Amino acid sequence: MTESLNSFLFSTPEMSRVFSPQSQLCAMMRFEWALTKALEGSDLAASGSSQVLEALLDAAFVDIGSLRSAGTSAGNIVIPFIHQLTQKVSECSEPASRAIHLGATSQDVLDTALVLQIAEALPLLDESIARLDAALARQVRMHADTVLSGRTWLQPGPPTTLGLKIAGIIAALRRDRGRLRKTGEQSAVLQFGGAVGTLATLGEAGASVSSELAGFLGLHEPELPWHTQRDRLVELVQVLAILTGTLAKFARDISLLMQVEVAEAAEESSGTRGGSSTMPHKHNPVSCAAVVAIHARMPGLVATMLQAMVQEHERGLGLWQAEWETIPEAFQLAAAALRYATEIAESLEVDAVRMNDNMDRLMGTTMSEAVAAALGAKIGRTSANALLREASAKALGEERHLGEVLKEIPEVSRQLTSDEIDHLMNPRNYLGSTRRFIAAVLRDKYAGH
Amino acid sequence: MTESLNSFLFSTPEMSRVFSPQSQLCAMMRFEWALTKALEGSDLAASGSSQVLEALLDAAFVDIGSLRSAGTSAGNIVIPFIHQLTQKVSECSEPASRAIHLGATSQDVLDTALVLQIAEALPLLDESIARLDAALARQVRMHADTVLSGRTWLQPGPPTTLGLKIAGIIAALRRDRGRLRKTGEQSAVLQFGGAVGTLATLGEAGASVSSELAGFLGLHEPELPWHTQRDRLVELVQVLAILTGTLAKFARDISLLMQVEVAEAAEESSGTRGGSSTMPHKHNPVSCAAVVAIHARMPGLVATMLQAMVQEHERGLGLWQAEWETIPEAFQLAAAALRYATEIAESLEVDAVRMNDNMDRLMGTTMSEAVAAALGAKIGRTSANALLREASAKALGEERHLGEVLKEIPEVSRQLTSDEIDHLMNPRNYLGSTRRFIAAVLRDKYAGH
Amino acid sequence: MTESLNSFLFSTPEMSRVFSPQSQLCAMMRFEWALTKALEGSDLAASGSSQVLEALLDAAFVDIGSLRSAGTSAGNIVIPFIHQLTQKVSECSEPASRAIHLGATSQDVLDTALVLQIAEALPLLDESIARLDAALARQVRMHADTVLSGRTWLQPGPPTTLGLKIAGIIAALRRDRGRLRKTGEQSAVLQFGGAVGTLATLGEAGASVSSELAGFLGLHEPELPWHTQRDRLVELVQVLAILTGTLAKFARDISLLMQVEVAEAAEESSGTRGGSSTMPHKHNPVSCAAVVAIHARMPGLVATMLQAMVQEHERGLGLWQAEWETIPEAFQLAAAALRYATEIAESLEVDAVRMNDNMDRLMGTTMSEAVAAALGAKIGRTSANALLREASAKALGEERHLGEVLKEIPEVSRQLTSDEIDHLMNPRNYLGSTRRFIAAVLRDKYAGH
Amino acid sequence: MTESLNSFLFSTPEMSRVFSPQSQLCAMMRFEWALTKALEGSDLAASGSSQVLEALLDAAFVDIGSLRSAGTSAGNIVIPFIHQLTQKVSECSEPASRAIHLGATSQDVLDTALVLQIAEALPLLDESIARLDAALARQVRMHADTVLSGRTWLQPGPPTTLGLKIAGIIAALRRDRGRLRKTGEQSAVLQFGGAVGTLATLGEAGASVSSELAGFLGLHEPELPWHTQRDRLVELVQVLAILTGTLAKFARDISLLMQVEVAEAAEESSGTRGGSSTMPHKHNPVSCAAVVAIHARMPGLVATMLQAMVQEHERGLGLWQAEWETIPEAFQLAAAALRYATEIAESLEVDAVRMNDNMDRLMGTTMSEAVAAALGAKIGRTSANALLREASAKALGEERHLGEVLKEIPEVSRQLTSDEIDHLMNPRNYLGSTRRFIAAVLRDKYAGH
Repeated sequence: MTESLNSFLFSTPEMSRVFSPQSQLCAMMRFEWALTKALEGSDLAASGSSQVLEALLDAAFVDIGSLRSAGTSAGNIVIPFIHQLTQKVSECSEPASRAIHLGATSQDVLDTALVLQIAEALPLLDESIARLDAALARQVRMHADTVLSGRTWLQPGPPTTLGLKIAGIIAALRRDRGRLRKTGEQSAVLQFGGAVGTLATLGEAGASVSSELAGFLGLHEPELPWHTQRDRLVELVQVLAILTGTLAKFARDISLLMQVEVAEAAEESSGTRGGSSTMPHKHNPVSCAAVVAIHARMPGLVATMLQAMVQEHERGLGLWQAEWETIPEAFQLAAAALRYATEIAESLEVDAVRMNDNMDRLMGTTMSEAVAAALGAKIGRTSANALLREASAKALGEERHLGEVLKEIPEVSRQLTSDEIDHLMNPRNYLGSTRRFIAAVLRDKYAGH
Repeated sequence: MTESLNSFLFSTPEMSRVFSPQSQLCAMMRFEWALTKALEGSDLAASGSSQVLEALLDAAFVDIGSLRSAGTSAGNIVIPFIHQLTQKVSECSEPASRAIHLGATSQDVLDTALVLQIAEALPLLDESIARLDAALARQVRMHADTVLSGRTWLQPGPPTTLGLKIAGIIAALRRDRGRLRKTGEQSAVLQFGGAVGTLATLGEAGASVSSELAGFLGLHEPELPWHTQRDRLVELVQVLAILTGTLAKFARDISLLMQVEVAEAAEESSGTRGGSSTMPHKHNPVSCAAVVAIHARMPGLVATMLQAMVQEHERGLGLWQAEWETIPEAFQLAAAALRYATEIAESLEVDAVRMNDNMDRLMGTTMSEAVAAALGAKIGRTSANALLREASAKALGEERHLGEVLKEIPEVSRQLTSDEIDHLMNPRNYLGSTRRFIAAVLRDKYAGH
Repeated sequence: MTESLNSFLFSTPEMSRVFSPQSQLCAMMRFEWALTKALEGSDLAASGSSQVLEALLDAAFVDIGSLRSAGTSAGNIVIPFIHQLTQKVSECSEPASRAIHLGATSQDVLDTALVLQIAEALPLLDESIARLDAALARQVRMHADTVLSGRTWLQPGPPTTLGLKIAGIIAALRRDRGRLRKTGEQSAVLQFGGAVGTLATLGEAGASVSSELAGFLGLHEPELPWHTQRDRLVELVQVLAILTGTLAKFARDISLLMQVEVAEAAEESSGTRGGSSTMPHKHNPVSCAAVVAIHARMPGLVATMLQAMVQEHERGLGLWQAEWETIPEAFQLAAAALRYATEIAESLEVDAVRMNDNMDRLMGTTMSEAVAAALGAKIGRTSANALLREASAKALGEERHLGEVLKEIPEVSRQLTSDEIDHLMNPRNYLGSTRRFIAAVLRDKYAGH
Repeated sequence: MTESLNSFLFSTPEMSRVFSPQSQLCAMMRFEWALTKALEGSDLAASGSSQVLEALLDAAFVDIGSLRSAGTSAGNIVIPFIHQLTQKVSECSEPASRAIHLGATSQDVLDTALVLQIAEALPLLDESIARLDAALARQVRMHADTVLSGRTWLQPGPPTTLGLKIAGIIAALRRDRGRLRKTGEQSAVLQFGGAVGTLATLGEAGASVSSELAGFLGLHEPELPWHTQRDRLVELVQVLAILTGTLAKFARDISLLMQVEVAEAAEESSGTRGGSSTMPHKHNPVSCAAVVAIHARMPGLVATMLQAMVQEHERGLGLWQAEWETIPEAFQLAAAALRYATEIAESLEVDAVRMNDNMDRLMGTTMSEAVAAALGAKIGRTSANALLREASAKALGEERHLGEVLKEIPEVSRQLTSDEIDHLMNPRNYLGSTRRFIAAVLRDKYAGH
């Protein structure tokens, strides 16, 4: 894909850098440098060879244009890259050029370079999650007692708190972070197998070269090469997609609360942000939209990765290549989703008065469950429910408060005093385990997730 | 997404150009120019305004950097684009700048610009299909009688011809082309509705401005604006995905025939194409792999498009944006798939001797169906099948030709003469309607598809 | 898959019947009957054979249990089916049993049976679409002048009408219907090719048997067998997915309008429909939810179909089988989506007063575009916009109507009289081409789509 | 979906049972029983109530027909289920019926019942994986030294061993098993939150009821209810999809080795398994096809789950329902894939002679890398590669063995003795770290994964 004008919505500058052509070339260079160094250790490369490559770690010598055109016929960019590298090294030291790429195959370079790029990408995401977590936790603490309608099927139900809503997001986000760390850690694995995964070219030295190579790159050494076992990479993309799913649920909820008819919470509206050229009064949830847009693209990437697992024998025909742009795209989308979700969380504007008003407009009917429960304990739930259904209809029909209506009903007033009814009609008295749940989430935070 | 080092596999230079930032800006400019011209016609823009815009059709005045950074907070690039355009125009003619974008909304510009880009992309694909069709038709004519094993479940069956195999591809490709033309034609529709799709700003002039605008752009005028009805765009991406599916089936078949153990057909191997740095004897099916890789990415794009159809009310929150990079990606992938499939078709190397040898190695057992049919007509199919099963096992076990084995079996020789058996064992005599099918496909071609 | 308790949400009784095991067996029987009849015509089956099969068209003789268990090892159910059929027929007439399945292969039976089931399914969908279209058209006529806020990014904008909103759905639905008819018509194609698609067993008779077979089944005869060219089936599932996408957009919009805080429209609430056991006041949008749920499953089915196109050589290994449950599922989901969407459309409850009230609550600010346009023509759009932005903020801040605020501003009152401002502030005067668009859609209807 | 005739390919009897309507009802009953018991503990249900429910744990009392028809209008089956249960219980004990479902909402029942069904499903999968692992490990031990061509891009490369190929599958399978166990363990979490996730109906008793309820069901208690945080369920389906991906890669490889032209390994062919009615000689890879077919359906299910994460507020509108058939389908597909993969692994037929022959037919050219490496150390890799390329072409062209050709070349014979060349040409001497890799995988097994 060529870069689009709208790429600002779908990546961040930092993550774009990690997956830029230049960064990929640097990662490939690191592989070749570390390999040469490992080969030196086994006397398979002339002493001092790796120092020559060390000076080229920035990959500045690579002619990207000719790399690409040669890649078209070769089917990948490694063959021309090795060619350019060998030429460059031999200009300085012919002996150093002899062992370049020895024992390795194209896929070793591309897969391990990808693993190295991922190792750079993951801390960026982890930090972004931490920042978002902190912003969300601040909101939870601030709004632990901010009461609003719970909503199911997009219809108002009994009350909950904004703190609890956001605590649910945090709990999921922390699971996502845990997944990402664990999957990331498990994916930091060297790929090094040579032509068909046997390291045959290196003979007896395979074990030591492989182990040193992994060490120089700061990667785990696998039990065996994983060239056509792509499960770890698939899992990584899947975990990124779960992450954006969590963020999209958050963004979706805020965008719904931000509807003018609801107006209970909103993402920041300062300056020209989200403005409309033709509608001066408008304020668009730009960040919410970005997160929703991003998550809509992730299921497709995951589908590609899963489908691409069926790579034949010792190197697949086509399905390996299907991953090449898919994995970088997933990381860039995830980074952008975190950025936009953080913008929402850090600037969240909350209108607690409106939350109250919205419940009031329903004439207390969202509290009918509370009364039904209390009344049910005395006259049976079926009778209580029937009674409340009728009273609620009456309250809404006559635009009178449900408490008032209830007090006039003899079957109710026989069981509940006016004060008891008032107490039951107060949303703040019907929050159940809300605070306990919030405390559990906040505590977990300090437990050092 | 940033552009990757491997993008050469997933686009063509021509298609990248159609969906480049510069082309998108030009298409946006064409919309604004045509709108101004249409407004002039209804006296809503100062006479001569459109001439000022006409000089800016190359969009060279746009500062892409500031466009992008303004886009981040505005949520799209149209607002800053209109700002830059207005400024530029007002430098030449203040009156001309007054009516810019009048009556339109951001989505009108972006959607119609996309439609214009698609209208440029479709002929490129159509020409590529034509070229591929011609290459395939040449192969069909050349190989109408080139006999090889039919293969089901990756196991050899009765004979077919290479001509028939490829005729099947052509038939599908022509249906794909028909779909693309029809869907393309039906998608060449102006989007113009203003803020919420009513064209209210234009009052009574809506009808005439809209109709002239469509005319100036060479687009159909829709019954009503389609801002949140995305079915046509979804269908386009779907049709592209069916096309790459047809190509991937072709590439897959060739890559299987190209296995050294089969070696019946291959994509070109001249020069360094598909070479391996470490394995001098190797010849990789680079073009086949590219087509397979590309098609593996298409289902995900279609899934995104379908999922993104649920755009709320008069402009969606996020799901519209999910299309922005998805549609250009689909076009680029399809163009690349056509290019690589054409490379295969134009350079196809066929080894008819090997096709024969491969059948011979099976000792004539792939002809057992033919004998069973002839014999079955005389002694019943069940008996005939049982007899053939046994004889085939014997032929393979003793490595003797099935014809020979059959001639020794009294139940057979009582019914069929030695000559009849020889005739039945000849693959060329068991091609059924092959030539009729091929003729139907080739005839259809000249019928002027 | 086993049938779930929740299958009522995801199919209709009629469509379940079309894709029931019994219906599949009947369709397979029809194929075998028609084949025998066609063979008779070419003297390849004993005269009168097809009459024996005609008596078995209800497939009541099939022992489904043993069919399934034999299918497990055979890999498909055709082999045991033919076995049972042959046995049954030979009980009546040994000669009639001899030509059963002659010239055909398992895939011919399964593919053509599927095509016959699809031919039964399509009219069901077409009728459902017609019924939905009629219900929607009634709503359009009834609500052509029912004004409500247009909404973009889930934020209120200038007014539109409910009629126009629904007209947009109708226009898309009719395109969907056209696609379904066309794709359906083009998919009604016989599959008949024998073991590898050459019809070799039938020798010279292939052409006539094939043509008669197609005729007896009421299907088109293809140019050549299409066993591993699945494009038509893929397109069918894609078109079904576009259809559910259109319906989901409709359901989504209604569910948003049905939010208590918006309360402008709702699906029927009579009786216990959508009731909640614990919340007596609640009314859940059950049908909207069903449509949204269904569409969420369609992209996955389309992805499977696309991925499954790469079927090797003359019969795929596995990817053909991947279609077997996918296609019936798509038809059942589409049928259910139509049913639930029709429930919404036929029972739509509209609250035009509330639509007005919701706009009023915004103090006329959604009309700012109208005033800005009128004012802009006199003092320039930039000044007008700035002025309106300020006035709108004031109106909302002071909870006074924008019209009132505007009249106090000298720059405005110099240009517009009080009456003119009142006129501009009236949503009914700012509907642009609404009626023209609606008329175009309704007219198109009578033109007999 | 109705059950199809082909469901035998896509489920197992055991897994179908776990997700049958009856099992779902039993799981729902277990929830209600455990809830009543927990309520008793907090004096919220009459003492002895749970005993009445305990007698109904088999859910035999449920009238499924009326459940389904009531479900259609209620939107889910819980409301009619609770109705039937209450009636049934009150027949035995009116007081026991009073507290049924107290504090819970429909989603609590459905989600927790699903979690209980999953907890039954996971050990079935775990046992199946163990059995497959054992079968594969036997093959690895048996074929640790069985040499065959490594193959990349479907082209032969240097040798590897069948043991190493399968060791790669085992390593991935064990990672999959670890993922499944971990994700399974983390998903065994109670969902219990009442109408909007606050447990408000239970007041102060929420904590104790929730904790006891979890205990009675053998589930973890979550920090807070997870009704609209679906990440754990998504991850489960994703892990199942990775598992089938690993199995499909295995099945794909075997099906390729099973091509008659390769014929190096095959799934069992005893009896009628994989037979063809018309082609007596044929042997179809039925189990391989089943696994490939299954995996082709998984990406779609994962896409649905990911897309369905965006569930609004405290209960989603539609997207929750989209999971209902998707999750059971994923489990059934995974179970079937394991079953078919195990059939392949347990009955794998290996032809080591043919493996050798296939390499021999390439005239030793797949060993060119070995010679190039040895020669390269002496005359430089570039010269060595060029020399080998030429010699390989000559060997293939003249159908002479590469070793023979090399011995005639002075540049070679100057560096390598005839014995050294013979040694280099022997595939068994070019297996590098193969045994070390295999040992690492087998060792890991005993380490008790």
